[in-house]
Amino acid sequence: LIERMRVYGETIFAEMTRLAMETGSVNLGQGFPDTDGPRSLLEGASRRVLEGVNQYPPGPGRPELRQAVSRYRARHYGIELDPDSEVYITVGATAGIAAAMLALVERGDEVIVFEPMYDSYAAMITLAGGVRRSVTLRPDAVSGRFTFDPEELRAAVGPRTRMVLVNSPHNPTGTVFTPDELEEIARVCREHDLIAFTDEVYEFLTFDGRPHVPLATLPGMRERTVSVSSVGKMFAVTGWKTGWVMGPEPLVSAVRTVNQFLTFSANGALQLAVADAIDGEWEWVAAQRAALQGKRDRLASGLAAAGFEVNVSEGTYFVMADIRPLGFGSGLDVVRALPAGAGVAAVPAQVFYDHQEEGAHLLRFAFCKRDEVLDEAVSRLTAWH
Amino acid sequence: LIERMRVYGETIFAEMTRLAMETGSVNLGQGFPDTDGPRSLLEGASRRVLEGVNQYPPGPGRPELRQAVSRYRARHYGIELDPDSEVYITVGATAGIAAAMLALVERGDEVIVFEPMYDSYAAMITLAGGVRRSVTLRPDAVSGRFTFDPEELRAAVGPRTRMVLVNSPHNPTGTVFTPDELEEIARVCREHDLIAFTDEVYEFLTFDGRPHVPLATLPGMRERTVSVSSVGKMFAVTGWKTGWVMGPEPLVSAVRTVNQFLTFSANGALQLAVADAIDGEWEWVAAQRAALQGKRDRLASGLAAAGFEVNVSEGTYFVMADIRPLGFGSGLDVVRALPAGAGVAAVPAQVFYDHQEEGAHLLRFAFCKRDEVLDEAVSRLTAWH
Ligand SMILES: CSCCC(=O)C(=O)O
Ligand SMILES: CSCCC(=O)C(=O)O
Repeated sequence: LIERMRVYGETIFAEMTRLAMETGSVNLGQGFPDTDGPRSLLEGASRRVLEGVNQYPPGPGRPELRQAVSRYRARHYGIELDPDSEVYITVGATAGIAAAMLALVERGDEVIVFEPMYDSYAAMITLAGGVRRSVTLRPDAVSGRFTFDPEELRAAVGPRTRMVLVNSPHNPTGTVFTPDELEEIARVCREHDLIAFTDEVYEFLTFDGRPHVPLATLPGMRERTVSVSSVGKMFAVTGWKTGWVMGPEPLVSAVRTVNQFLTFSANGALQLAVADAIDGEWEWVAAQRAALQGKRDRLASGLAAAGFEVNVSEGTYFVMADIRPLGFGSGLDVVRALPAGAGVAAVPAQVFYDHQEEGAHLLRFAFCKRDEVLDEAVSRLTAWH
Repeated sequence: LIERMRVYGETIFAEMTRLAMETGSVNLGQGFPDTDGPRSLLEGASRRVLEGVNQYPPGPGRPELRQAVSRYRARHYGIELDPDSEVYITVGATAGIAAAMLALVERGDEVIVFEPMYDSYAAMITLAGGVRRSVTLRPDAVSGRFTFDPEELRAAVGPRTRMVLVNSPHNPTGTVFTPDELEEIARVCREHDLIAFTDEVYEFLTFDGRPHVPLATLPGMRERTVSVSSVGKMFAVTGWKTGWVMGPEPLVSAVRTVNQFLTFSANGALQLAVADAIDGEWEWVAAQRAALQGKRDRLASGLAAAGFEVNVSEGTYFVMADIRPLGFGSGLDVVRALPAGAGVAAVPAQVFYDHQEEGAHLLRFAFCKRDEVLDEAVSRLTAWH
């Protein structure tokens, strides 16, 4: 293994899911739902395979899906994307993130990220030879939601800064950036002529009526923002590995140059099914959002009753919980003891931080599970404690 | 786009397939069959999607598929692979190639490749920051098959050489390396302590009874060889994007470290269907091989009758043809004129060479098509000329 990648082991998600399976634990670690997306989506894919959509699709993706993506971004956010040159299909958002970092980050370039951060960002910036500058999200004293200090963001910019990476709705904190927060980021990008990269995979999983605002809709941002989203969280089929990169032609074309050699293309039958669902299954998406909001509340109140201090989650599949009220200090220790001890798997937030002490006392729990599964987890955690 | 990737545009396969579609040409460019793999395979995938195999599979792949891969490599070649640590599932061979180059090639490392070479090798070595040393395959004066000069191979080794990349059966020449040729390569690897990377995606598409011999079966090679293969060519479903990396644990684990952040995983439903086909559809594979041998003969004699000088192809989907007897010099020019002029798309071999003059007069034609499609292509080429 090349030297700069030696700090990375197995992903925390793979590790915790394996541990959960070995111990028969309720798995609230890795973020995947335990019920699948709309029936029409599954039937659409199933039918395409039988009908013979089994050879290479066009490298940039099936036009049907690129057009459907362009339509939903226009309808929901007013963002106009040319489906031929400004939308590009990848093997899930993960491949889009990888290709974007490898295509856009030159050796020695600095990338500003908000920590805690999804693990692939760090790994791909490192693989590209880039350098991270992390701005820490911390719970606001009044509202309890994770947010950043604009001073800290501005201080992170230097002469080698190339990109700001923004994930909203944010995994793992559940924060949905407000227009004011986004404007702070946009201002920094405009002033220092930076590329913005936005990971919007949870775009339709915001709660309490909170809107998701794409950074590209802010003044001066469309031409410098490249975004990813995917079917996995939109339609609850995380294993489908079908995502899309969106942005101005020069940025998307750079991503394509790398991506075509990383995977060449994503599966075509799945792409056609996803295109139909994007056009036809908005009620399902709305119902999913409402259901997840209920699940968030259910798990959050259960965790609070079990003695955790539960943070505010405004979106995603996740809620963060502080272990200190239970008398513990190290989330890593707790999370390693939980599967065997309590029969529950979670994820230690610490691994998502460059400044690890900031997250040492936090666990991430996924609430994208059936209600009885959430209840079982809570009752096990209550009994354990 | 980062500087070192600016030499790469759209892949030649994407470009030629687009051109073929725009002109209504018979597409003998990109290598994909026009009939799909066994019915049981398609039904297996279709059923798994409906049954609910739609969430993240384990990052390293479904155990069922890793075990099936381990079984077929043992049965066919006597290679014993631990399915848990020595087999790893990727999004097609392409992702396996990318992850292996990015994981194993340190900046400045040299990689020996045989040209003409599949385009992703060059791009991924470049992205890794490595340097190519190309050894040219040329038609043997007596047999007509493409082969290399062992002296040239030995001369390509230097103090920074890290890896030899071997693709057999070889795309685009159709050469299947003989045990003697493989031993020349193995000797160089052993003497200079090099890693061997083998792309064996056409392993079951060899003709005239010629055996495919994995480099890993040669003395001293198993512990230094990492190999990729995939379902695409094995079962004629190139769009399924399901491949596997095989080798000793330290090499496979290095590949995993990078791959888990490139794509995280491949689709799970497809993996289960592939596992069943690997165990149950060997007669289909044998029939496919026989059919393709007939197609090779059909296209080769048609191209010869149309005036090309046709090279020997011992395997793969491809045959190389020399345009000089037709009075042309530049394959690039011919291949760009063919779709509009003749209604046929091919691939210029030149793009697969570092020493481009070596392949300037060669076109690659794919024969993995229905007989009537091959006949139509030949009659168009005959009329054109
Ligand atoms: C690709 S595995 C990680 C899944 C996920 O989004 C998460 O758990 O954060
Ligand atoms: C991944 S597109 C290239 C397909 C192929 O193997 C070829 O045509 O050489």
